[in-house]
Amino acid sequence: MIEVFKQYIRSKSKVTDEDLAQIVAACQVKRLRKRQYLLQEGDVWKFNAFVTKGCVRTYTLDDKGNEHIINFAVENWWTGDRESLASGEPSIFNIDALEDSELILIPKKNFDQLCELIPAFNDLINSVLQKSFIVAQNRIHTFISLSAEEKYLKFLEKFPHLPMRVPQGMIASYLGITPETLSRIRNQTAKK
Amino acid sequence: MIEVFKQYIRSKSKVTDEDLAQIVAACQVKRLRKRQYLLQEGDVWKFNAFVTKGCVRTYTLDDKGNEHIINFAVENWWTGDRESLASGEPSIFNIDALEDSELILIPKKNFDQLCELIPAFNDLINSVLQKSFIVAQNRIHTFISLSAEEKYLKFLEKFPHLPMRVPQGMIASYLGITPETLSRIRNQTAKK
Repeated sequence: MIEVFKQYIRSKSKVTDEDLAQIVAACQVKRLRKRQYLLQEGDVWKFNAFVTKGCVRTYTLDDKGNEHIINFAVENWWTGDRESLASGEPSIFNIDALEDSELILIPKKNFDQLCELIPAFNDLINSVLQKSFIVAQNRIHTFISLSAEEKYLKFLEKFPHLPMRVPQGMIASYLGITPETLSRIRNQTAKK
Repeated sequence: MIEVFKQYIRSKSKVTDEDLAQIVAACQVKRLRKRQYLLQEGDVWKFNAFVTKGCVRTYTLDDKGNEHIINFAVENWWTGDRESLASGEPSIFNIDALEDSELILIPKKNFDQLCELIPAFNDLINSVLQKSFIVAQNRIHTFISLSAEEKYLKFLEKFPHLPMRVPQGMIASYLGITPETLSRIRNQTAKK
């Protein structure tokens, strides 16, 4: 699975073979069985993590035991908790696997060194961060401007394969709508 | 107002006096009267912009003429449209002044050069980006997990001075709730 990560780095940046060898030397491989945790609320998150296989989700649990899904990450996506990583404070998030998954972890200290030593890698990481911000901003825009149905259709447009991999209730939570509303929308959409 | 910007840069990064002179040389000062536009939907956004005085908002207009407020920016905040800036595509956003305002604009080309030449400035900009992402992610979390009242209380906690500067209807839009709901919450909160 290191190959998936190497291919990703090569396709997105102009690192040399030597740079890539340095990056790979810092990588740890992490396998998660379905339902296994990568991060639990209250722990400090200390890695940069990249999914090479499978699907994980980031979520919080409220006092009533309800799950609130912040995001999903599948192959070639980054995951983790940037806030806890940056601040060193305990995370408010849980991350667990929705399928048997494989990830690349790079400890923060090594990752920061790589960013310092390899400008092309640093540029890639900042462009990932910029893209993540734009995705988050667009998602905020859907929350304040779209109806429940429009939100779901936009979600399908952006992530056409996720509904086959993720339970419907989790998609409803991700969209900030009730499972009943999502079910009604799906029935209506199917009839059209 | 360049002084406000210089003080901000100095307080957040270890730039030398020479670095700072280079940064200031790239700055343009922009004054906006209340209601004047900084960016209009359909135009390409080509600057990095920093508010030194006043308050601006970023919003979209839907087909029915409803405004959807993405964010506000007051003194010492950055504003603009990162997506249009990065892609060179026309913006979907409008940005206008809610008060007479003053901003520092740095054209994209000069800004990118400064980031390349001055590592401390580059680090500052990336840490601003990281912070913006974390703020956006936390806001997404409030959308999917909090009640309307909790959202408003969280907003007050984070931005205690904004309600004095921004009309109530715009705050409702920013929170993704109706003006009537916000009005009810404010009345209830006042009674407590």
